[in-house]
Amino acid sequence: MIARDRVALICVLSAIVVGSTVAYEYQTKTIDVPIDHFTYTGEATFKLRYLINDTYATGTEPYGRPILFYAGNEGDIEVFAQNTGFMWEVAPKLKATLLFVEHRFYGHSLPFGNASYDSPKNLGYLTSEQALADFALVLRTLNPPNGTTRARPVIAFGGSYGGMLAAWMRIKYPHLVAGAIAASAPIRQFEGVTPCGIFNQILTSVYAVAYNDACVPNIRRSWTTLQNYSTSAEGLKTLNEKFHFCTNLTKATDVTDTLFEYLKDVYGNLAMINYPYASNFLAPVPAYPVREFCGRLEKNYTEAELLDRLQSALSIYANYDGKATCLNINSSYDGSGISDRGWDFQACTEMVMPMCADGVRDMFPPEPWNLQTYADRCFKRYGVHPRSQSALVNYGGDFLDASITNIVFSNGLIDPWSGGGVLRTTNANVKIVLIPEGAHHIDLRASNANDPASVTWARVEHVRNIQRWLAEYRKI
Amino acid sequence: MIARDRVALICVLSAIVVGSTVAYEYQTKTIDVPIDHFTYTGEATFKLRYLINDTYATGTEPYGRPILFYAGNEGDIEVFAQNTGFMWEVAPKLKATLLFVEHRFYGHSLPFGNASYDSPKNLGYLTSEQALADFALVLRTLNPPNGTTRARPVIAFGGSYGGMLAAWMRIKYPHLVAGAIAASAPIRQFEGVTPCGIFNQILTSVYAVAYNDACVPNIRRSWTTLQNYSTSAEGLKTLNEKFHFCTNLTKATDVTDTLFEYLKDVYGNLAMINYPYASNFLAPVPAYPVREFCGRLEKNYTEAELLDRLQSALSIYANYDGKATCLNINSSYDGSGISDRGWDFQACTEMVMPMCADGVRDMFPPEPWNLQTYADRCFKRYGVHPRSQSALVNYGGDFLDASITNIVFSNGLIDPWSGGGVLRTTNANVKIVLIPEGAHHIDLRASNANDPASVTWARVEHVRNIQRWLAEYRKI
Repeated sequence: MIARDRVALICVLSAIVVGSTVAYEYQTKTIDVPIDHFTYTGEATFKLRYLINDTYATGTEPYGRPILFYAGNEGDIEVFAQNTGFMWEVAPKLKATLLFVEHRFYGHSLPFGNASYDSPKNLGYLTSEQALADFALVLRTLNPPNGTTRARPVIAFGGSYGGMLAAWMRIKYPHLVAGAIAASAPIRQFEGVTPCGIFNQILTSVYAVAYNDACVPNIRRSWTTLQNYSTSAEGLKTLNEKFHFCTNLTKATDVTDTLFEYLKDVYGNLAMINYPYASNFLAPVPAYPVREFCGRLEKNYTEAELLDRLQSALSIYANYDGKATCLNINSSYDGSGISDRGWDFQACTEMVMPMCADGVRDMFPPEPWNLQTYADRCFKRYGVHPRSQSALVNYGGDFLDASITNIVFSNGLIDPWSGGGVLRTTNANVKIVLIPEGAHHIDLRASNANDPASVTWARVEHVRNIQRWLAEYRKI
Repeated sequence: MIARDRVALICVLSAIVVGSTVAYEYQTKTIDVPIDHFTYTGEATFKLRYLINDTYATGTEPYGRPILFYAGNEGDIEVFAQNTGFMWEVAPKLKATLLFVEHRFYGHSLPFGNASYDSPKNLGYLTSEQALADFALVLRTLNPPNGTTRARPVIAFGGSYGGMLAAWMRIKYPHLVAGAIAASAPIRQFEGVTPCGIFNQILTSVYAVAYNDACVPNIRRSWTTLQNYSTSAEGLKTLNEKFHFCTNLTKATDVTDTLFEYLKDVYGNLAMINYPYASNFLAPVPAYPVREFCGRLEKNYTEAELLDRLQSALSIYANYDGKATCLNINSSYDGSGISDRGWDFQACTEMVMPMCADGVRDMFPPEPWNLQTYADRCFKRYGVHPRSQSALVNYGGDFLDASITNIVFSNGLIDPWSGGGVLRTTNANVKIVLIPEGAHHIDLRASNANDPASVTWARVEHVRNIQRWLAEYRKI
């Protein structure tokens, strides 16, 4: 579940559009920031990377020329710069500077170089609070007040964990950020706020309505089938022959641990990137990849047939371009160039996002959520105990006080992460944008001819809200 | 100047009302909090002390029974509980719980016990951000949501640095604090926001209008007189005879460093505690102690006379009860039970508050502000370099965004710290309370028959604002 949560959050925005002709341009710079913003136990700094494009920021209007700031999340910042086409599309209209700031411990922003991941002694500085403080320092440094005037207005953007950071920047640093577009930001995906099963229930519903009524029952049945095959040498041999694993399965847990985790990851990833056009993230996939997947699981099969069909369906994700010679189930994001090490640690410290399955309301093997078990595993792996309430204490999560303003929470309703997102509020100054046909933060992507109307409308709303915030900023 | 700033901020609320019959009652408890809230480099915790009185919190009204929370500042929390009479006076009316939470590294809340002050390795965890996170954890722990209902509303209070913390709690943790009364909170007393000379100019004006026209000229002249006496053995002998120092002065710098710093501290302290009734803080003083002080410096004197008069005036502060057998100039808060070690460190890290004097607009020997000199001194003393912009980056300081709501900034205009306070704002949701006749956070003190009308009015305004916030909280 740890791995799965991590991949789920990371996959979309961290993708590299391999072979795409889209290539946005920027200058790459660094700024020295303290390794620890909140104590004075040491004075070490490190170089935090940011990308900037100033070519659209023309004109002299006071408080014009906003800064569109992407709050980097768990990956190389260049990936986010290249995969957040919406910002690039609105920058010329708003005469804006584009600024993408890398999250510490990802990409090139490694506080201790190659030793950054060595132990909690170093890795312990990987927290959202420190990352936000990095962002604040960058903004304050690049965007100083000019004499008697205020600084240029800053609009924060982010998707997924980056969306959480964008919202939290506005909440925690309102003097530095005039407003935030938080796309698919599951700021409620914490202990005691959102039920642990929601993610898998939404995920299952995506498969249930994708194409046919047989898809979910087939997936649900496949776990038992696979388990049946895992208990004998002959069964394992059959699985190895059918699936062409890169490394042969040799024992039951290879199926029930490794293969199961891989399958869960793939199902989650496919739902998140279930875009209406072909895309290429962790792997190339066709338009509506869940529909394609379910199209290969369309009726009742024998056990042997089911395995064949499942293998065929998996190839939608694992080998759509036909280049793979075997199925690597050790990673569902093989070849993406993304390091998962950071998010695994964050998920074991403050970003504890409870996940569970019951096999009834979802299509997965039952797996209860148990914080103690989870915490024990984290301690064994990293020597740290999660503080599962930390994000709630620090950021609120379930309660958006009336003083929290100028945030848009957008969520695609076919995105499993929307379950932990902000879908309603009594706070009139927080705007909710629901995208019924939207997958994971599709609204931040470059516009596409196949975008459903709700996505196009969401982007119009974003611009309208940004312009309102800028007008407010000018008035004050 | 370091010592002086520290004393200035600490003196009033940290006072113990010796011999007073006022004694508020509470239970003393502790809660385990992480030494470091913002990293996972270690897992150590320590016991943070808090005081609680639940006897007034009766009734069953939803969202009634607010929690009045004092954000502890640089001293023993019991001192603040005993010296914030206003909270005790309103608690029964509001059916409120009283909660006073100690600031880490002060009082009994020592993260490393007796070793807490040993080095930056330990002392480095003494920061406002960590203290606010302590408060947040205490509030979240003591005031959890009840099923489907929100937690009880919390109103934060604080004076001086505690007022800064109260305001910052509302800004940074709006989900935990419904509103804040920030009394005499100099959140603008930082580099580049408030001119360094304001404090001493206001201070001087208090002496200028206190009683007679001769007071300020006499004080201004006294520096030269003292310096003249410091340059010869005979002069020093005269000073020792006249002032009865506990330790004889033996060299010029004993006058120009030690005695001068002591005098500056005393002048600042007297201005801050220039209350309309006798009080007993760092030392017992009569009502309007500045007036009493100036009453002894009322005309032109010879140099020798001036020294006699100054010695007599000083006794208002140093020996009003006649118990002192000599004048201890090593500390202006001797016997108060207050440790200054913590604030000195904070002033050398993030609480850098520029101070200067020019001898023209103020009554002090000219002393320019030089950040580099200051920083060098801090590094020599503690092995840390100040981050003089840290508080501004983190908390805003000069810019109260429209999203910042439900804070009252109250300032007595005869309080030197009002120069760095928030005296005006375009933000309609931040309330300004000016107390023309008020010294340092007099409005938080217990009411007194001699309170000027403006102080009484301020307290009425506080209650009105609190009730408005509570009504808002109930409505949401």
